[in-house]
Amino acid sequence: MSDDGVAQLGEFEFECGESIPNLEIAYETYGDFTGDNAVLVCHALTGSAHVSGLRRASHGGQATAWWDDIVGPGKAIDTTEYFVVCANVPGSCYGSSGPSSEGPDGEPWGTDFPPVTVGDWTRAQRELLDHLGVPNLHAVVGGSVGGMNALDWAKQHPDHVDRIVAVATAARLDPQCLALDAIARRAITTDANWNGGEYYGGDPPKYGLALARQIGHTMYLSKDSMDRKFGRRSAGRDAARDAFPVDPAAGFFPYRDVESYLDYQAEKFVERFDANSYLYLTRAMDNYDLSAGFESDADALAAFTGEALVLSFTGDWHFTTEQAETLAVAFRQGETPTAHHKITSDHGHDAFLVEPEKVGPPLADFLEAGVSGKAVTDTISSKSDRQFAPVHTSLFGK
Amino acid sequence: MSDDGVAQLGEFEFECGESIPNLEIAYETYGDFTGDNAVLVCHALTGSAHVSGLRRASHGGQATAWWDDIVGPGKAIDTTEYFVVCANVPGSCYGSSGPSSEGPDGEPWGTDFPPVTVGDWTRAQRELLDHLGVPNLHAVVGGSVGGMNALDWAKQHPDHVDRIVAVATAARLDPQCLALDAIARRAITTDANWNGGEYYGGDPPKYGLALARQIGHTMYLSKDSMDRKFGRRSAGRDAARDAFPVDPAAGFFPYRDVESYLDYQAEKFVERFDANSYLYLTRAMDNYDLSAGFESDADALAAFTGEALVLSFTGDWHFTTEQAETLAVAFRQGETPTAHHKITSDHGHDAFLVEPEKVGPPLADFLEAGVSGKAVTDTISSKSDRQFAPVHTSLFGK
Repeated sequence: MSDDGVAQLGEFEFECGESIPNLEIAYETYGDFTGDNAVLVCHALTGSAHVSGLRRASHGGQATAWWDDIVGPGKAIDTTEYFVVCANVPGSCYGSSGPSSEGPDGEPWGTDFPPVTVGDWTRAQRELLDHLGVPNLHAVVGGSVGGMNALDWAKQHPDHVDRIVAVATAARLDPQCLALDAIARRAITTDANWNGGEYYGGDPPKYGLALARQIGHTMYLSKDSMDRKFGRRSAGRDAARDAFPVDPAAGFFPYRDVESYLDYQAEKFVERFDANSYLYLTRAMDNYDLSAGFESDADALAAFTGEALVLSFTGDWHFTTEQAETLAVAFRQGETPTAHHKITSDHGHDAFLVEPEKVGPPLADFLEAGVSGKAVTDTISSKSDRQFAPVHTSLFGK
Repeated sequence: MSDDGVAQLGEFEFECGESIPNLEIAYETYGDFTGDNAVLVCHALTGSAHVSGLRRASHGGQATAWWDDIVGPGKAIDTTEYFVVCANVPGSCYGSSGPSSEGPDGEPWGTDFPPVTVGDWTRAQRELLDHLGVPNLHAVVGGSVGGMNALDWAKQHPDHVDRIVAVATAARLDPQCLALDAIARRAITTDANWNGGEYYGGDPPKYGLALARQIGHTMYLSKDSMDRKFGRRSAGRDAARDAFPVDPAAGFFPYRDVESYLDYQAEKFVERFDANSYLYLTRAMDNYDLSAGFESDADALAAFTGEALVLSFTGDWHFTTEQAETLAVAFRQGETPTAHHKITSDHGHDAFLVEPEKVGPPLADFLEAGVSGKAVTDTISSKSDRQFAPVHTSLFGK
């Protein structure tokens, strides 16, 4: 069984205080709801509700399911066992309300759309689940900024969720990533076609969005993965070289594999994503701070009584293993049974998407059995310690 | 004694095969030439000939000397002892021939200026030294791409230089840095004001150049240094917030210290640097490969009979300590007495400029006494090993 659609959630007040008359949330569900088997999957920055399976044509979404290796029948998040819900976040452009969706005047909202926060995503998801008749969640699973979204569930609705899986994420971005996101936004807003966000029906700011995406892509890879994928090799073809204007002197130098890759990816991306949404969603990510409104991350998580799995990747510099450990410590301070499963990978941040064979087993076993799950490892050595770990000791003992 | 000026070097053929009728090289010298005390200092990407001392008004250059803490009377490169020469590289915009300088038709060259390489810089410097009556160099010292320039001296003119000091550099850029440089160039060429490089006399592509500089600045810092300098703090002032166009939703979110810093730095930079030069010089850096034309880096350095000091910084992700070690290994393979002096710093790539107290002592002692210099340390343990190190063993023994 699966379902998709666009839920009409009525008036919605955003964290900023502004409201829109009708929040639309595009969603997909997989499997049957039995009352206690719901798993909410939160997508990353440019993801959609389309997390698994074949293309569904009923509303906007990515052509390729973004986590099809992980979510589906017999997969790590087994849709024959769990009722999986994935929703496009407000502010995005894949069927949910956002800058490119139609406002009350029949025109796209553009930059009149209210600013959105990760907290707004969580509340919209809560409303969607009410709409679907799902009071409680077995788990919330998310990667990257979707992991922040999962953390926000533990903070905002600690009694509505039993298990949190925070993949390749952190309690907040570090200033290096804030800088790169800020530069990406400036690439969009300085594109003459951006025009204050009023480009719908005209030429979109494709160069600015392409640059933003290329900055993002570089953040998703690692030095090692780029070395392996591209090295300093010439592309041996100039296929995408005309993606950007170039000066004559460029012809003396090789068009490198790494450039060809970035140009090709950017060209595909600008066809599928809205530039204003990119501004809105990166701001939501940059602004997220788990501890906001509390004394600390641990305080923000203190009311959560379930279990937590923090998955991190050694080659990830967007969200580092050190940030993941800090997050695990915060969970443990509230006596939450927590495992920080650190995966050795040189794939960078992308690892959570491209190494399903490493992500799937601990994820599946954690959904089944919590931190005691067979494939779940931890940065603290013994499984019994996981539940009653003395804080600040032996975190890297393993 | 010091001198500055613009040398008229006549017709110059670039590595690409194109020529210009008269290569002009802006240079400064400090101290007196005694026949064996000349030190060539090579500047980094956006540097000028103005390495030390007060502003000289006679030709274009940076208002502030870029390595004044290191070069001067009584400093690490002591101008009472050494005759120091620093020259602005061809392709730059501080008085030497480049895209913004006047071409044969009396107009700026623009993108008709030939592509330049690090090898062209070396040859232009060789010609300048001939012009100044300096046959041989005691040392060539350079940081960042200026370090590549120093390495190129060991490769192109092994008999003309006794000591090489390669600071915060590598035999070649890694693909992650190639990617970020490529994105920076795209930011310039997609700025509508770039106009194929024909913007002189009109509005320059200041947004594109600003973005390029901001990408660069992020590369020059480290996660740790950004954390210490900015954290996630709000700027507490909106002084530079109007540097770029912004959408209304931005007002809900803080304008952060890190953004304020990047915006302020970018605003200053676009006043002082030429966008076409940024394209040309980053291409020269990206294209540099010490091993080009040889079997390996070691082969390229094999004819060099002097001594080498490789200085690296632990927090530098633009040019890593691993790359520095690889470079030191290449020097050692040719039995060059080599020290890899690794400096612990969280300042990132900028450390070579902002931590003169760590750079100065090993640099001064190496100029004086080679690898046996008192403050010179190495990644291999004993000083006697430095000169006759078995290759491939115990490189990280210290």
